[in-house]
Amino acid sequence: MKYSKIPVARSIVALCVAKNINHVVISPGSRNAPLTIGFTHHPDIKPYSIVDERCAAFYALGMAQQLQKPVALVCTSGSALLNYYPAIAEAFYSDIPLVIISADRPIERIDIGDGQTIRQKNVFENHILYSANLHSELVLDSEATDKKLQQKQFESQKHNEREVNLALNKAIEEKGPVHINVPFYEPLYDLVENVEVNPIQILPEIKERTYTESQLGGYAELWNRAKRKMVIVGVAQPNAVEQEFLEKLAKDDSVIVLTETTSNLNHPEFFTRIDTLIGPIEKDENREELFKTLQPEILLTFGGMIVSKKIKAFLRNYQPQQHWHIDSKKAYNTFFCLNKHFETTVNSFFKHFFSLTENVESDYGKFWKEVKSKRQVRHEEYMDEIPYSDLKAMQEIVPAVPENYIVHLGNSSTIRYAQLFKWKESLRIFCNRGTSGIDGSISTAVGSASLNAEPTLMIAGDLSFFYDSNALWNNYIPKNFRIIILNNNGGGIFRILPGNKNTENFETYFETTHQLQAKSLSEMYGFEYRSAETSEEIKEQLKTFFSDSVQPKILEIFTPRKINDKVLLEYFNFMKS
Amino acid sequence: MKYSKIPVARSIVALCVAKNINHVVISPGSRNAPLTIGFTHHPDIKPYSIVDERCAAFYALGMAQQLQKPVALVCTSGSALLNYYPAIAEAFYSDIPLVIISADRPIERIDIGDGQTIRQKNVFENHILYSANLHSELVLDSEATDKKLQQKQFESQKHNEREVNLALNKAIEEKGPVHINVPFYEPLYDLVENVEVNPIQILPEIKERTYTESQLGGYAELWNRAKRKMVIVGVAQPNAVEQEFLEKLAKDDSVIVLTETTSNLNHPEFFTRIDTLIGPIEKDENREELFKTLQPEILLTFGGMIVSKKIKAFLRNYQPQQHWHIDSKKAYNTFFCLNKHFETTVNSFFKHFFSLTENVESDYGKFWKEVKSKRQVRHEEYMDEIPYSDLKAMQEIVPAVPENYIVHLGNSSTIRYAQLFKWKESLRIFCNRGTSGIDGSISTAVGSASLNAEPTLMIAGDLSFFYDSNALWNNYIPKNFRIIILNNNGGGIFRILPGNKNTENFETYFETTHQLQAKSLSEMYGFEYRSAETSEEIKEQLKTFFSDSVQPKILEIFTPRKINDKVLLEYFNFMKS
Repeated sequence: MKYSKIPVARSIVALCVAKNINHVVISPGSRNAPLTIGFTHHPDIKPYSIVDERCAAFYALGMAQQLQKPVALVCTSGSALLNYYPAIAEAFYSDIPLVIISADRPIERIDIGDGQTIRQKNVFENHILYSANLHSELVLDSEATDKKLQQKQFESQKHNEREVNLALNKAIEEKGPVHINVPFYEPLYDLVENVEVNPIQILPEIKERTYTESQLGGYAELWNRAKRKMVIVGVAQPNAVEQEFLEKLAKDDSVIVLTETTSNLNHPEFFTRIDTLIGPIEKDENREELFKTLQPEILLTFGGMIVSKKIKAFLRNYQPQQHWHIDSKKAYNTFFCLNKHFETTVNSFFKHFFSLTENVESDYGKFWKEVKSKRQVRHEEYMDEIPYSDLKAMQEIVPAVPENYIVHLGNSSTIRYAQLFKWKESLRIFCNRGTSGIDGSISTAVGSASLNAEPTLMIAGDLSFFYDSNALWNNYIPKNFRIIILNNNGGGIFRILPGNKNTENFETYFETTHQLQAKSLSEMYGFEYRSAETSEEIKEQLKTFFSDSVQPKILEIFTPRKINDKVLLEYFNFMKS
Repeated sequence: MKYSKIPVARSIVALCVAKNINHVVISPGSRNAPLTIGFTHHPDIKPYSIVDERCAAFYALGMAQQLQKPVALVCTSGSALLNYYPAIAEAFYSDIPLVIISADRPIERIDIGDGQTIRQKNVFENHILYSANLHSELVLDSEATDKKLQQKQFESQKHNEREVNLALNKAIEEKGPVHINVPFYEPLYDLVENVEVNPIQILPEIKERTYTESQLGGYAELWNRAKRKMVIVGVAQPNAVEQEFLEKLAKDDSVIVLTETTSNLNHPEFFTRIDTLIGPIEKDENREELFKTLQPEILLTFGGMIVSKKIKAFLRNYQPQQHWHIDSKKAYNTFFCLNKHFETTVNSFFKHFFSLTENVESDYGKFWKEVKSKRQVRHEEYMDEIPYSDLKAMQEIVPAVPENYIVHLGNSSTIRYAQLFKWKESLRIFCNRGTSGIDGSISTAVGSASLNAEPTLMIAGDLSFFYDSNALWNNYIPKNFRIIILNNNGGGIFRILPGNKNTENFETYFETTHQLQAKSLSEMYGFEYRSAETSEEIKEQLKTFFSDSVQPKILEIFTPRKINDKVLLEYFNFMKS
């Protein structure tokens, strides 16, 4: 075994291993050499090398999202670190554990004109769970005898070990990003063999509350009295909720459960397409009456971010009397009427809560489930009649995705189209909804793909794809990885939003039209490339797109830029009747 | 003229125009629509549209570096903004004025689960000159009569106008990045015609000190007494110092002037290749004696960052008795012995200082100028005998660059090789030395190229090129733009640094080897592509590379990865004899 001669580098590696952090994504640099040496030589660490730190961070995010445990990132000093920030913000809002370890220069070298040197201390302050600003450790010669210096070194070392423990624990306990900044003195490359390192171990503590009958009693009473209860599930990991609890919710006539593609939770009684429920009401003459019928007395939410803007707008205008959110960590006041944050897991909550509740007779569930069935029929009718467009292309794609795939969706229009469809229940579906950026979705999918035995499919718009094209500069892409690009030559989302369309100004500064195609990048990065520009071609390509191959594959679907907005907006009109 | 209905958006545009900020780089988004509409319809604004915010920011940096006045950036809310950070840090340390204008959601919508919403307030705190956190302004209906609301609106508006003034002034006065965060309520796309906007105008104030005879007298006395004076010039704009002052320095036998490629300052007596001076002394048996002979009594510095690590190491070990730095804004204690910061421009300082000084007889200048001449001869001898390598390729490139080109250099090995050569005096040479990152050098060069009538050449390593390949996704690249890539299949700098070479571990995690070539990207982005892999091929290609063309051009020079370090390290050995 080779170790860095610098004690703090050895401690960091040892503490990561002790806390079961085994995946480490390293970007090249010299200042971080002590860490790179330590991590890449440890038998319990799987290191990855990625040059572009923006991609590296999203790649680590994709892995951590799948593992549900921290993945570490290591980079050199200077602006390298700042390129992590978009992924850090995503991790912060998506509750994904990431450990950022940045090498730094000793504090005397900050702001004196040295190269690759910035103010790294607390640099992610707005979006980080913990910032461990370590002290630099001079490596003393073995013959050094200065007692004061030895004492100083000892104290720095113990301070550092504690800080690293606390940072790593925070990432584990609260699932989010933490930052460990490590100043190193030169020399950076000196090695020692088999040196024991035995840093202090502070164990993480998962703070999970259990609610007692008396704490839940009042809420159960309200629940049992209410005739209209709505459950909304945001972004969630697959299998986050036990099936018996889902059955219980599904069978209660006073409850409707609204889920999204990213909820990863299935039951035939659930409303999986929120916009298809709400959108047509918005267009209806009797919308006020309909919304009042839909307005819940109690709103119960769990999971992360909710994609549907329509449900947010509806509930902000038609507020429930009670809004309760279940989450061990945090509760957002999304609808400006949050009454209660149950600080526990969903399963723990339901286990105790359902022992106090009963099914309530109501026609709330029945009424809306009938609406749902009607919408389903209209949806099929509409899909049959629309021209070739983004929506039509999605209709071809969704049923063609094979069972058990991991599906990553791009932001902006892709995720919104995806919400209108019923996906196979065996799929696990992800999207970077923490900040809803387009900046790292491809890298996130690659990170996810590189860890899973099951194949991963990424579906993204052209802007998301080209923005994050460095995602493909990656040596860990499995050959079963697939990308479908919906290329409508620009930011299709902007046509759907209000504003003046079909002017040169709109096309240049909002839609940002371009003529780029993914073919050259596919060749450069060793992907098999296909394209399609009609429904028939999509169908034809999809027949073999998912079959085994020696290279990962890209299918680029070209759609006509200018009709997508009309097709989508008309969808909600059509559905209402 | 079309204006946004939102007053603050109109004020921001008006104040930018009033302060002569005319170039605005916009990234697509909806939240920033009020700003996009305002900036893109104003006759005095030249708007640019760039999708990837990381590239957009470096592109703006490249423009601002050339203009020496602020360029504005506009983006939507969420992680978009964070992608600006690498360029902001570069601007902060390179004293380049950038105005970051980020759209935000109103404060009630932060951290409640809305999409594309992060904590934007003060998010760049560590590296920003001013953060203007504006208040959101509700647009009142014309019939609204609520006095309290009107008063609140009035106060917010006036607060915002003042903050925008202060932020823009700071960028102008102190040449650096500032951040204006603007929360907007919906609707975002509403327009008004010809609405007058008349925000308060606060003029910037350039604080420039003039030193009096009595203030300078003591320093002049020290100067006149000292037999060994060294002047070092860091990164500087072309023509930053008047020729008469340079002559004065050149003619004083007690003064040697050390400049770098990025100093943009020329005189036949100056030492343009610092490493060629210092490097061989490091290898010399009599190094201690030689360094003592070189050790100045007074060190006078001006300009920004100094590239040479060797001169920093030398002066930290052989400190001058006096170190003075001239700069209106800041002085770094680079050598840990700074005595005096003259807070003024170089020309103003010299004008007053030189009226108090006289030439001093000394053999300091003569001795070192002789060393310099010898080194020059040895340099030529060495270049003639070395095998094909990065250094050899640079030797072919440097004399072939036509007169009056603007040259941008990549970081890491490119800039270090560049320091070993004598470049044509008519060239203007730039490099992102604020943070010395590889993350945006191509975009910076594109920004520079798009503004200048003279052609721009970018020389970069392969990692810098591929890292920032989205730089080419840009509609403003002039056809006279040229890129030379020194492709040694990885991070060549790491071979030059200490550490264990030629192991798989080194190649994967330090050098990060790859087989990528720029050909596919050249095709995709409409560049003419050429390549070379011998000195002869480079010579041949360079004959026509700079000639007029209908497309911009890329020349990719492939060099053998494994001998570059030996060739460079041997250079300093060879030079000493």
